[in-house]
Amino acid sequence: MAEYNVIFYPQALSVRVQEGTILLDACAKCNITINNLCGGDGICGRCKMIVKSGKVKGEGTSQLNREEIKAGYVLACQVTVQSDLVVDIPWGTWAKEKLIANEDAQRFSYLSKGSSYAKNYEIKPIVLKLYMELEKPTLANVTSDLQLVCDKVREVLKIPSMQTGLKIIKNISKILRKYDYKVTVTLGLRRQIAEIMNLEGGDTVDKNYMIIVDMGTSTVVAHLVNANNTETMDGKACFNSQGVYGREVTGRIIRAEKVGTDELQRLLVEDINKLIEGLCSNNNINLQDITAVVCAGNTVMTHFLLGLSAEHIRRTPYTPVSLIPPPLRAVEVGIGINPRGLLYALPCISGWVGSDLTAGILATEMHKHDKLCLLVDIGTNGEIILGNKDWLIASSASAGPALEGASVECGVRAESGAIEKVYVEDGEIKFKTIHDKPAIGICGSGIIDIVSVLLDQKIINRSGKFIQGSHEGIFTRNGISHFILVDSKNDRTKKSIYFSEKDLENVIVAKAAIFAAIRILLKRLELSYSEINKIYLGGAFGNYIDIDSAINIGLIPPLPKEKIEFVGNTAIKGAKLTASYQEAFHEIADIHTNTTYYDLMGADDYVEEFRKAMFLPHTDINFWREE
Amino acid sequence: MAEYNVIFYPQALSVRVQEGTILLDACAKCNITINNLCGGDGICGRCKMIVKSGKVKGEGTSQLNREEIKAGYVLACQVTVQSDLVVDIPWGTWAKEKLIANEDAQRFSYLSKGSSYAKNYEIKPIVLKLYMELEKPTLANVTSDLQLVCDKVREVLKIPSMQTGLKIIKNISKILRKYDYKVTVTLGLRRQIAEIMNLEGGDTVDKNYMIIVDMGTSTVVAHLVNANNTETMDGKACFNSQGVYGREVTGRIIRAEKVGTDELQRLLVEDINKLIEGLCSNNNINLQDITAVVCAGNTVMTHFLLGLSAEHIRRTPYTPVSLIPPPLRAVEVGIGINPRGLLYALPCISGWVGSDLTAGILATEMHKHDKLCLLVDIGTNGEIILGNKDWLIASSASAGPALEGASVECGVRAESGAIEKVYVEDGEIKFKTIHDKPAIGICGSGIIDIVSVLLDQKIINRSGKFIQGSHEGIFTRNGISHFILVDSKNDRTKKSIYFSEKDLENVIVAKAAIFAAIRILLKRLELSYSEINKIYLGGAFGNYIDIDSAINIGLIPPLPKEKIEFVGNTAIKGAKLTASYQEAFHEIADIHTNTTYYDLMGADDYVEEFRKAMFLPHTDINFWREE
Repeated sequence: MAEYNVIFYPQALSVRVQEGTILLDACAKCNITINNLCGGDGICGRCKMIVKSGKVKGEGTSQLNREEIKAGYVLACQVTVQSDLVVDIPWGTWAKEKLIANEDAQRFSYLSKGSSYAKNYEIKPIVLKLYMELEKPTLANVTSDLQLVCDKVREVLKIPSMQTGLKIIKNISKILRKYDYKVTVTLGLRRQIAEIMNLEGGDTVDKNYMIIVDMGTSTVVAHLVNANNTETMDGKACFNSQGVYGREVTGRIIRAEKVGTDELQRLLVEDINKLIEGLCSNNNINLQDITAVVCAGNTVMTHFLLGLSAEHIRRTPYTPVSLIPPPLRAVEVGIGINPRGLLYALPCISGWVGSDLTAGILATEMHKHDKLCLLVDIGTNGEIILGNKDWLIASSASAGPALEGASVECGVRAESGAIEKVYVEDGEIKFKTIHDKPAIGICGSGIIDIVSVLLDQKIINRSGKFIQGSHEGIFTRNGISHFILVDSKNDRTKKSIYFSEKDLENVIVAKAAIFAAIRILLKRLELSYSEINKIYLGGAFGNYIDIDSAINIGLIPPLPKEKIEFVGNTAIKGAKLTASYQEAFHEIADIHTNTTYYDLMGADDYVEEFRKAMFLPHTDINFWREE
Repeated sequence: MAEYNVIFYPQALSVRVQEGTILLDACAKCNITINNLCGGDGICGRCKMIVKSGKVKGEGTSQLNREEIKAGYVLACQVTVQSDLVVDIPWGTWAKEKLIANEDAQRFSYLSKGSSYAKNYEIKPIVLKLYMELEKPTLANVTSDLQLVCDKVREVLKIPSMQTGLKIIKNISKILRKYDYKVTVTLGLRRQIAEIMNLEGGDTVDKNYMIIVDMGTSTVVAHLVNANNTETMDGKACFNSQGVYGREVTGRIIRAEKVGTDELQRLLVEDINKLIEGLCSNNNINLQDITAVVCAGNTVMTHFLLGLSAEHIRRTPYTPVSLIPPPLRAVEVGIGINPRGLLYALPCISGWVGSDLTAGILATEMHKHDKLCLLVDIGTNGEIILGNKDWLIASSASAGPALEGASVECGVRAESGAIEKVYVEDGEIKFKTIHDKPAIGICGSGIIDIVSVLLDQKIINRSGKFIQGSHEGIFTRNGISHFILVDSKNDRTKKSIYFSEKDLENVIVAKAAIFAAIRILLKRLELSYSEINKIYLGGAFGNYIDIDSAINIGLIPPLPKEKIEFVGNTAIKGAKLTASYQEAFHEIADIHTNTTYYDLMGADDYVEEFRKAMFLPHTDINFWREE
């Protein structure tokens, strides 16, 4: 098959691809991040590019108007390369380069330095270094070099079972004698097994660092932790490069079936590697001294990390390949730390409830609470955990991406210039953008705010319809009502930003999905919401939500504010605990085992509950109180 | 450094080597087996070769006479290559080709077909195949593909802990669906852990074979075992190709320090591979269906198998790298079976008491006996185990190679034409050779016999001196008395074979070393030999010894014959048990743990006991009875 050269401007990057390659895939190969949302389904219309020379082939699309088509505009996800190409990527399409975008992503790294997670556990990290001065063997003390080391480890750690690989064994004799039996052994600990991962001469105990990763669908966050004292030293984040293959995991699974899981794995691993390299160079740490990487994330990200096919997760009965992946060598997936360093992906609960939630349970300690707790992670999928020390039940509601800024016409992810807050001041509807930059769109927290404000201001009604004439900001286009926040007519340098009745519908669908899921779990257990002692709002997104707005639109039950807690990035917190304390390492496995997954697709009354929740805040204003 | 070409005739094999390479090493690289005994120390004089053209460099040697030197004879172990060479290897030097020699080795394979080792154990081989028809996942039964398989294994085997590698996990989903959830899982079992080694579609349970190897210093024996019923199907043996680097392990360790442990490993692994290939092709079995190789052998062979340096085993305090090597993939050392197939080297007791003895204890069941048992393995090192169900003590006596036919002038290993039996019939001293071929020398069992016969016939006295005039077969050369068995003067087609006072001295040293070791162990435990309920004579060699001769010269205590048992190749027997039964797998680890090694170098009275034993059968004819 013929191969062609494609050059992208203004980046001036080129790539050689086979005839028939989708233009967006060619772009991805150049590592150019596109601001698209739908993952190549031709729906979002955000991958517009201009073909300056050469031939492409593709279907018609309603996302481009006549003028654009005449000017050479194409949707990169809908056309294939048929000759050498020169392609212009307009500003709006690539928007920000990965580098700039990653600075925005930093707000997800939620860095709280210091070892704040010590609890009552004894520090015993997943990878432990022990310095030992061994007694030299004598005729009276018959032992092997390996035994000498193992016996000392057993004595110190009280661990009965030891494992070692041939490579370690091959070098043990030389190292012992060269360093006069004064050596540092690196141990991978899990349950009753200690694996000798490395043996070095002298005392290198102080050089033992871990990387904790939250593999978010949109944002990848990495923290650097000193394994010896559990102290968080630094944090970094970037937008998940898999974004080029779709904003949602479902889109990425579909693309992985075409381009191969390896490609999705490569993008994620490269992101993690870049974060690790950045953390190391910022803190003058050698990559060799990173002995473990502990990752939390949804089940699909976990699959991609390990190069496992996620195809069956998107099809009923949503079967993952593995929920409890074994600890591996990081090098097995291409993560560049110490060659013998460990990679541990935390256990997931089901195909749609990932290890970010297992970590969340661990971090909130709801698995130790006497009273009823609810953990809600709001995203494209709303994940819900209900329970206490005796039982835990998990569910996942397919909310759609509205609450994350997608499927909302002016929705953007949480980046510089995104409207993150909408409020009323002096009777006027105002907003605040991230970094106070000129507004480029509305992100998740802003979307929840705007719905709440429009409802309070009686600009929309409880059924999600605009009340015509209620506000001068309302206008109608193509028969659909819109509320304008920024009007380019007033200031030509600005971009028009509005919120439509169609957007509102998507938001209501999202909140109804989550709301109905909470209701179903409570019903199954014959509990009422008032019995909930604590609501934890988790996930990277949770921290930025306004609680009043969320309650006002019916996203979360109307509990007193002191019972609602933002818990920040519990994926990172939980993963950090697991990495630092053997007790937590055991607990998270128990959490996996003891959490029952309840699939809403199997619930007869889910549709009814969902329908009832399609109002603001819900069917009956006193709904919660009816119970 | 310059490189030269060396051609060996009559094999017509050539090799390119660096200037200064020892000629014997060049020969080894061509895989030509030399009949040498001393391993390159220039002592045995059996690596004579004729340099037809080219230059070599070397020291003078007393092993070559003037005529030989004039004719171009060299000792291959004592000269280095200094130019391109053409070398003739005389018949007597290479004697038999490897192929023919290996036929001789077959007598060591002691094949007893059938599953004679069943005992009361339940058959559960080290690598087990399970065919499973799994229930397909449903919405109500949330599980991962991996969990589905693991749960079934746990259910069937009652094993709590499972391990799997990423490669298996990556393929599990495809295989389950392609084969409609009907699959065969291959499991590596050890203690409370089952490792998924492979997953195949359909039922392949009947294709599960194991190879059991006895890595003898001189002979490598391999048996083919059906893992499903423990049946021994076939056996093969060859002489250990490491022989080119020395007959004794000490010589090989020294050479390994020069040529590298890898080279020693390569030779042993190639031998094992050839045996496996032969067994597979003879029995129409695919190499892929060999799932495990279980090896027993002395500690040095175990080190060479794994590529571990044995250098510290030959120096006080004789520290091995590892006595309990972890189970590995066979491919890690280059053994060509199923790529995921297991290699398990049985646990050794000390640097000088190997896993052939641990296997021997298991096979004889002396670790379960109420009464006192003694296991003696006669070889270059005499290994001795004393004990019962409550305690086991092990020791190793450096006997020297006399009892194996080396350090005896006309000594040969047990090959066709070796004198294996010497006896008196009608007042005449007669002998029998292996395969009744013309006599080429005397092997171990023959050597013990001849000493016993010479003693009985009063041709030698109890101090090991020849009684001049006692027999017409006595002649003197260079001031040393000899007894002639075959005289070439009588028949020019025959080779002269004799036994000298010097040879006798070496034999007495060997028997004294073993005898003194037994004495010391009994003394330490304040036991007398009469309390021994059973003597097991083990090792490949043991089977061919005449008990009366052995008692007569004082090699073993004079117990009633029914208390002395030849146990054959207990290394193979024990390894087979370990491979076939999990109980035995656990027991052999316990035997390792519970056996105390007593080092004779640390015994003040060893020299005295040794000196006392330098008589036939010992200092006092009533020695044993004195106790």
